[in-house]
Amino acid sequence: MERYDLKARRIPDTTIRRLPAYLRALMVTGQERITSEVLGHLAGYTSEQVRKDLAYFGAFGTRGVGYDAGLLADEIRRILQLDHGVRAVVVGAGRLGTALVRHTDETASDVSIAAVVDINPEVIGRVVDHLTVESLDKLEVLISEREIGMGIIAVPPGGAQAVLDRLVASGIRAVLSFVPKALTVTNPDVFVQHIDLTLEMQALAYFVGQSHPSVR
Amino acid sequence: MERYDLKARRIPDTTIRRLPAYLRALMVTGQERITSEVLGHLAGYTSEQVRKDLAYFGAFGTRGVGYDAGLLADEIRRILQLDHGVRAVVVGAGRLGTALVRHTDETASDVSIAAVVDINPEVIGRVVDHLTVESLDKLEVLISEREIGMGIIAVPPGGAQAVLDRLVASGIRAVLSFVPKALTVTNPDVFVQHIDLTLEMQALAYFVGQSHPSVR
Repeated sequence: MERYDLKARRIPDTTIRRLPAYLRALMVTGQERITSEVLGHLAGYTSEQVRKDLAYFGAFGTRGVGYDAGLLADEIRRILQLDHGVRAVVVGAGRLGTALVRHTDETASDVSIAAVVDINPEVIGRVVDHLTVESLDKLEVLISEREIGMGIIAVPPGGAQAVLDRLVASGIRAVLSFVPKALTVTNPDVFVQHIDLTLEMQALAYFVGQSHPSVR
Repeated sequence: MERYDLKARRIPDTTIRRLPAYLRALMVTGQERITSEVLGHLAGYTSEQVRKDLAYFGAFGTRGVGYDAGLLADEIRRILQLDHGVRAVVVGAGRLGTALVRHTDETASDVSIAAVVDINPEVIGRVVDHLTVESLDKLEVLISEREIGMGIIAVPPGGAQAVLDRLVASGIRAVLSFVPKALTVTNPDVFVQHIDLTLEMQALAYFVGQSHPSVR
């Protein structure tokens, strides 16, 4: 099996974003070998998409036989750097923030929440699953001490940019933002993924009436 | 101003998905006129992207003067069908489901949560903000009585496909799924948007170590 060389080939972000779905599909099936058709079906993509995506890492598959499921899962974990485990800090212990901590604990992924911080004195000290909410003042210390590599922002829009700036200054390069506001980052090494639940719902509204012109 | 004709031109889903961000940007700025540069900056996209997206609806902008902010906001609301208001049902009143209800109430969007249902007798009857958790058995009745057009699925993977099937059978055409599993739908009029928080975090893990080859 060829090894993927990080420097030699740049994998498109869109491909990277499908890899976790493939990984979960591989873990769901107990098979030793899996075809691109089955993998695509389980992950929710076409077999063509699967083959195209996996071709970026070299020739895993054998025609008519499929992929070695174990090798492929290990390789995806390695590419996503999940083989090292990733620790994240949740900034903002409000309704969404605490739900995220608990949801992540429940789903037992390779990403673990190692700290949760808030600015509100009434919230600091509360226990959320296995963690105690710490003060936002300790953000940099916690990131360093607990070797945190990912930031999850679930604060109100007003304080979000300052939080992002502090995360980036602390060496965080991967950020998941639930803030309903575009945040800016000048460091090209930092990747910020936005999940705006309100926007998702508003965009979906378009499809509510798509096939019902009579309601307009 | 030209009017957008739903039948004449098919707007790409990717453009539809950016419209809510433009709408919010228009609401944030108090200006009567706004250029594609400012709109793009506020929404987090390039001015070229803004101009390309808005061109689908006809010629709103005037070079050097920009767009009429009020007209543009109204038009986006109309296209997204937000001018009618959209009511959604949240299926699954667990941690994520209840956080979604509260989050949506707080952000006061044009989408409102009109019902929340669960299968667990211990959860049914609980109050979540302005709603009482109802039995999943009443799903179809609630959708009809409360004129619900959108479904939000926040149940464990095992029961998710059955929930989706029931939503679709009840006439729901727009679904937001937080289920960590690919769901299938055969009706081409139904749009299912997946938000898988675990997958998002796993995909982000890739970027944690991107600029730190030394940690490998």
